[in-house]
Amino acid sequence: MSTYPRISAQLDELETAVEEGRRKMEWARQHMPIMEAVREDFEDNQPLAGERIAMAMHVEAKTAILVEALAAGGAEVAVTGCNPLSTHDDVSAALDDVDNITSYAKRGVDDEDYYAAIEATIDLEPTITVDDGMDLVAAIHEDYPELIDTIVGGCEETTTGVHRLRAMADDGALEYPVFAVNDTPMKRLFDNVHGTGESSLASLAMTTNLSWAGKNVVVAGYGYCGKGVAKKASGQNANVIVTEVEPRRALEAHMEGYDVMPMAEAADVGDVFITTTGNRDIIVEEHFERMQDGVLLANAGHFDVEIDLDALDDLAVDRYEARDGVEAYEMADGRRLNVVAEGRLVNLAAPVSLGHPVEVMDQSFGVQAVAVRELLERAHADEYEPGVHDVPDELDREIAEIKLAAEDVDFDSLTDTQRDYMGSWDHGT
Amino acid sequence: MSTYPRISAQLDELETAVEEGRRKMEWARQHMPIMEAVREDFEDNQPLAGERIAMAMHVEAKTAILVEALAAGGAEVAVTGCNPLSTHDDVSAALDDVDNITSYAKRGVDDEDYYAAIEATIDLEPTITVDDGMDLVAAIHEDYPELIDTIVGGCEETTTGVHRLRAMADDGALEYPVFAVNDTPMKRLFDNVHGTGESSLASLAMTTNLSWAGKNVVVAGYGYCGKGVAKKASGQNANVIVTEVEPRRALEAHMEGYDVMPMAEAADVGDVFITTTGNRDIIVEEHFERMQDGVLLANAGHFDVEIDLDALDDLAVDRYEARDGVEAYEMADGRRLNVVAEGRLVNLAAPVSLGHPVEVMDQSFGVQAVAVRELLERAHADEYEPGVHDVPDELDREIAEIKLAAEDVDFDSLTDTQRDYMGSWDHGT
Amino acid sequence: MSTYPRISAQLDELETAVEEGRRKMEWARQHMPIMEAVREDFEDNQPLAGERIAMAMHVEAKTAILVEALAAGGAEVAVTGCNPLSTHDDVSAALDDVDNITSYAKRGVDDEDYYAAIEATIDLEPTITVDDGMDLVAAIHEDYPELIDTIVGGCEETTTGVHRLRAMADDGALEYPVFAVNDTPMKRLFDNVHGTGESSLASLAMTTNLSWAGKNVVVAGYGYCGKGVAKKASGQNANVIVTEVEPRRALEAHMEGYDVMPMAEAADVGDVFITTTGNRDIIVEEHFERMQDGVLLANAGHFDVEIDLDALDDLAVDRYEARDGVEAYEMADGRRLNVVAEGRLVNLAAPVSLGHPVEVMDQSFGVQAVAVRELLERAHADEYEPGVHDVPDELDREIAEIKLAAEDVDFDSLTDTQRDYMGSWDHGT
Amino acid sequence: MSTYPRISAQLDELETAVEEGRRKMEWARQHMPIMEAVREDFEDNQPLAGERIAMAMHVEAKTAILVEALAAGGAEVAVTGCNPLSTHDDVSAALDDVDNITSYAKRGVDDEDYYAAIEATIDLEPTITVDDGMDLVAAIHEDYPELIDTIVGGCEETTTGVHRLRAMADDGALEYPVFAVNDTPMKRLFDNVHGTGESSLASLAMTTNLSWAGKNVVVAGYGYCGKGVAKKASGQNANVIVTEVEPRRALEAHMEGYDVMPMAEAADVGDVFITTTGNRDIIVEEHFERMQDGVLLANAGHFDVEIDLDALDDLAVDRYEARDGVEAYEMADGRRLNVVAEGRLVNLAAPVSLGHPVEVMDQSFGVQAVAVRELLERAHADEYEPGVHDVPDELDREIAEIKLAAEDVDFDSLTDTQRDYMGSWDHGT
Repeated sequence: MSTYPRISAQLDELETAVEEGRRKMEWARQHMPIMEAVREDFEDNQPLAGERIAMAMHVEAKTAILVEALAAGGAEVAVTGCNPLSTHDDVSAALDDVDNITSYAKRGVDDEDYYAAIEATIDLEPTITVDDGMDLVAAIHEDYPELIDTIVGGCEETTTGVHRLRAMADDGALEYPVFAVNDTPMKRLFDNVHGTGESSLASLAMTTNLSWAGKNVVVAGYGYCGKGVAKKASGQNANVIVTEVEPRRALEAHMEGYDVMPMAEAADVGDVFITTTGNRDIIVEEHFERMQDGVLLANAGHFDVEIDLDALDDLAVDRYEARDGVEAYEMADGRRLNVVAEGRLVNLAAPVSLGHPVEVMDQSFGVQAVAVRELLERAHADEYEPGVHDVPDELDREIAEIKLAAEDVDFDSLTDTQRDYMGSWDHGT
Repeated sequence: MSTYPRISAQLDELETAVEEGRRKMEWARQHMPIMEAVREDFEDNQPLAGERIAMAMHVEAKTAILVEALAAGGAEVAVTGCNPLSTHDDVSAALDDVDNITSYAKRGVDDEDYYAAIEATIDLEPTITVDDGMDLVAAIHEDYPELIDTIVGGCEETTTGVHRLRAMADDGALEYPVFAVNDTPMKRLFDNVHGTGESSLASLAMTTNLSWAGKNVVVAGYGYCGKGVAKKASGQNANVIVTEVEPRRALEAHMEGYDVMPMAEAADVGDVFITTTGNRDIIVEEHFERMQDGVLLANAGHFDVEIDLDALDDLAVDRYEARDGVEAYEMADGRRLNVVAEGRLVNLAAPVSLGHPVEVMDQSFGVQAVAVRELLERAHADEYEPGVHDVPDELDREIAEIKLAAEDVDFDSLTDTQRDYMGSWDHGT
Repeated sequence: MSTYPRISAQLDELETAVEEGRRKMEWARQHMPIMEAVREDFEDNQPLAGERIAMAMHVEAKTAILVEALAAGGAEVAVTGCNPLSTHDDVSAALDDVDNITSYAKRGVDDEDYYAAIEATIDLEPTITVDDGMDLVAAIHEDYPELIDTIVGGCEETTTGVHRLRAMADDGALEYPVFAVNDTPMKRLFDNVHGTGESSLASLAMTTNLSWAGKNVVVAGYGYCGKGVAKKASGQNANVIVTEVEPRRALEAHMEGYDVMPMAEAADVGDVFITTTGNRDIIVEEHFERMQDGVLLANAGHFDVEIDLDALDDLAVDRYEARDGVEAYEMADGRRLNVVAEGRLVNLAAPVSLGHPVEVMDQSFGVQAVAVRELLERAHADEYEPGVHDVPDELDREIAEIKLAAEDVDFDSLTDTQRDYMGSWDHGT
Repeated sequence: MSTYPRISAQLDELETAVEEGRRKMEWARQHMPIMEAVREDFEDNQPLAGERIAMAMHVEAKTAILVEALAAGGAEVAVTGCNPLSTHDDVSAALDDVDNITSYAKRGVDDEDYYAAIEATIDLEPTITVDDGMDLVAAIHEDYPELIDTIVGGCEETTTGVHRLRAMADDGALEYPVFAVNDTPMKRLFDNVHGTGESSLASLAMTTNLSWAGKNVVVAGYGYCGKGVAKKASGQNANVIVTEVEPRRALEAHMEGYDVMPMAEAADVGDVFITTTGNRDIIVEEHFERMQDGVLLANAGHFDVEIDLDALDDLAVDRYEARDGVEAYEMADGRRLNVVAEGRLVNLAAPVSLGHPVEVMDQSFGVQAVAVRELLERAHADEYEPGVHDVPDELDREIAEIKLAAEDVDFDSLTDTQRDYMGSWDHGT
């Protein structure tokens, strides 16, 4: 039994924190019309009654709206962070203050406490896990295999998490069904492109006070996150350079009008480097050696392994905080390479950072909420095998319709004639 | 046995036509580095030796480069058009003049001759069919079922064709394997978006002499073609309005910054209407009644059923050619609605139109060529069941690599460490 | 006395030409709401009664609408072309058929006839000249100085013309007042940016069947025309490279996100080169020597002196028409450099070209028409000194208001309080 | 004699503040290559030796680099803020610690202290004034006319300041020469467009955690600032709506593809409103009454008079801080209108705000520095009359060249032949 303390036991000025957390949540709630609709439905119909949900997510105001919706649906919820630097203690405290919710998330904890908090949520003996980065699934499979039998299923929020889950499933090691929430159109098309793109750039701008216009911005990786960063940087008049390992993506970037080149060449000309690959060792020693004085290095991928800071530290003759959240590594030849937010997810870990915009999380969490509902409805009936599952398309579509209605955006529907036409194959030229 | 005459028997000044057709093909060849590489490979290795290929495609210079590559690979080829207005007679004649190629394509034929020409190609008793709109597959299944046994497989070029093939397969009616070339990344990401987008707008501009800046351009449908048209119109400073029936696509357009509304509302404010849905009855009587004087109506979808011209004709009190390729329908209240290219595929059927740009067809036809090769290599060994098949990803990737090499675009490759990392699931936060 | 024949005396099938010319003019008229309003006003009020106007302009449908409006206002008009390749003979014939209008413009005339036609219009003994490139002003000052006394003033349409007029005025050589219509906001902000930009690219695309996506498009000069070409090319997903001689403009292009480099470097990497400088010798021998096989060379500046074709011809070992309007120059090493429209103004001289879009010319010609009216109202009273004059701002504003009304675009107006505030200087922080 | 205390006398932890201020300045200095070159030149040549400069500017790190350059050039400098909320006390302290610099700027002072600090700088009996908003010029003309005789001249940084100066000059009230630094190409083209655009949006995003994608963003005013905000918002996939009072600007926005409408209509549909007009009463009672729940209201114009907060307060039934820097005004019908940064300049006064990006201020302050040098060189010789003067073009060009050199951007130069051609007027078609 974990003895890791809930957040309320860790804070000094708890009442103030709870109040501030609530204010942050109210702002989020005001701009999350999908979750508002979902929460009302959950409150009325109690689809999660009697369930126990463990969550490892970025604990800040938007996530809190998902957590409270799940609790409103009848579940008992235990939540912790999925990144030591992304937790807002006040929101954590406000959540912990809600009935049926326990929060263990605290900002800045060390590795030991980070995993202790994860174990604390597992102590709930969850029937559902909700992950952003697969930490819960990994911990349960490694250390608490005895709990797997009672777990109905899980949801995974992020590209990297889904990637790892698939690798695990390929190894035959994943023993309960997990929804790849990350892979739904509603998540991928908006969260990764608009969310990561806008928030990473705004965090960088407000952390450094630098401009995008005319800058050579090197975007490593041209998946959905990379596309978002490239698109938004280009929209701020940066000259975007893309590095890729997949030829179709490289060609796609080239045809968009971006420069495409290997990182070894990009290192010579880039002013700002933003990694989005989900892979490791994207910017390494040979690149640091070629970079110009004053460059910015930032990461918008899930883990802090894309920029090889150990190698950079070895190269550096000096190292100092150039600005809050910016560490300058000074080379022997006087060049200064500025690493933002220690190479962690810049839109969450930079001093000026708020994670994804409220509206994109509204969409993404809307899918999470109905995916949890779906798991309970179907998976209890054993309809989902262990493994990674796509969220059923009609659920994703349901969330899109709620969003369009909230935005007062009207759209057409097929007539019967059109539906027939689309289903037929005998009409000619 | 068809007695439909090949193009050389239909033209008066044949020699001039052949010469002009060859000049057009040489220009295309100069800008189709992928096909150049494929043709060289086919000539050397004769992967299609002894095969008979029937093709119903837009017969103009770029397609001709595909046709000659297939013949260079050892096949006997019979080709006709897939749209009565898209054929270039001179290119048709130049093809017909090549060894092992017979062309029946002639511009402006009526329905009877159109289908007679298709039958003429079927007379070859093909082992492979290559379609752009499924006309060959449909004709063979309906009228020549006895040929199906000897057909190895087919390739389908276009969205609409694949859509109809899938409907046919769902009915259990498709009796040989067909590659959905249209669905490959190399086709979808470039042909539909860049090709349809750029060429439709340039054709419209050069047919009408009108400007895009500040125009309300209504794009019906937000699939790949619609996205292309919207993106390129926006890039010419149009104010883009999107109509859709699918909520995720509607939302995607909305989040891109476009206006999204039902056609019934768009009809009030649009200056230019471009349909891209692949469906019928997109612009109908109720819309015509609301449109402003002087609007342009054009179609970028495969078939000419998206704009209901019969209804428009019924409403009109007068009708005259306002400009080459532009038919003005005058309403009782004096409003003139200008239909471009009779509502047929505007980038092929407008008086100033050249189909897709050379470079995008180079990619698309590169996939076609290796897909035909694949069918023969594998399908003879019965590896492909009857039905619609995705083109194997490594073939698509092969074409991307050829293209990037031709453009001198270099890109990164994974290190072993990175490959291992991407395949592992045990690294934590 | 000139004996140069009017167009009606030069054409064989005159009636057909006139009819076709009228149809073209009707299409233009349908999309020129500003000129429609101006013409109605001129017809009613006859502000040009008794005047004689000589015009050297691109004689095609849109210009024809200006010509007929001036005639409708009471003037006698003689018109000829300002570029041997831009005249539409049918429009010229239709104009010549109108009362009080004589047209001498004919497509493809040689230098001798070109200037003879200009002299023919001067034979009218004009009170007003309307130029696009300063040919009339130059010819009158050089060869007909005796006419200057009776000339009230002139209008100049183009950047290059105004530039030359200012040089002439600086030399003290300009002896009557000329309005720099080119320099008005209504001309510069729309004609050069949107008009030149859109039409040059559409002409190039429809002349070559090539795509913009992923192309390195080198734009020489970053004035209004260059900005337009760069902006629209970028909007078609080209990778834009700018060359400039003025540091602020170079910096502006750089801050927009474009690559900026000297032509000597751009020559290595460009796929398409478009000159817009108004200067000569922009692309010369040293550049030809470095270019890749298959590049396109085109000019969007007024004169055909930006690309040094003589030098290119000297370098070439062969030269052939690769495509209508495209001359391939083959180098000794096999590289082919493709020159579009003989280096003349591409949006007017290419085989597929229509000049500026109708709507932009509507704005520009609206200013021309009211500038002519202004000259007569004020200059007869000697209010304008010899020299280059800005069109009075209220005239330019008048045209903008007519256009916005025609487009149903409503805008705000200042309250009295706001007007006072803008005129005051004593409010603090 | 003013007794207003310098900042060092007002702070408790002075040493820490000075250190932090210096760190901020070092970061700015690292990204201000123009100022670095200017400062080195000033140090070497002492062009300002013996002068006294009073400055009322936004006192933060970037401005500090200008202040220290002026001091390095030999001047004694007294500086204060030009906006009570834009001062960084630590930077103020670090400046005050420099030889020959006195700083009176303190964040959050009330009106009385604000003007007392301005008077304190005037106590220096300046020979040069440097303003951002004309406060110094106004105060000197109103209250210290006796100083005017010894003042050589001034510089004004901002649109609004220049506007007021011109009004003052029109009244014959401006008694010394002032450079309209704001009106230089180097300021206008970059500071207003890129600087205001990028920083306003990033501040708003990081203050509210909201997204731009798909938002209706109403930009009031389409001058340089409005263009920047519109361009950058559009580049983040907002749907931009522009309101204007000038028809050419309204048309320019319309032709860019933006929606243009009166504020009374925009009020119905806007999600975010950003004023940039420099005028007052842009958003008033009739607009508040029509707005949707949850809208954001922000100002990017110089003064806080664009949004009528008094009227909003009268309408509201409740008012609370929804988020740091966001005041929610609750209407009787439950709608909440969220005002950001009290309607003050959002990129300076929002809780997350840093003013303009470093690089744009580098350009703008480069011009300031050489303009001050110019005033001393020429104006002592009485070359500049009292009134508003344009900065000489060669100074502006000088700064552009320094910047391009710093960015390693090379550009072309005119050949003699080209220079002759541009100066001639006798070349024909």
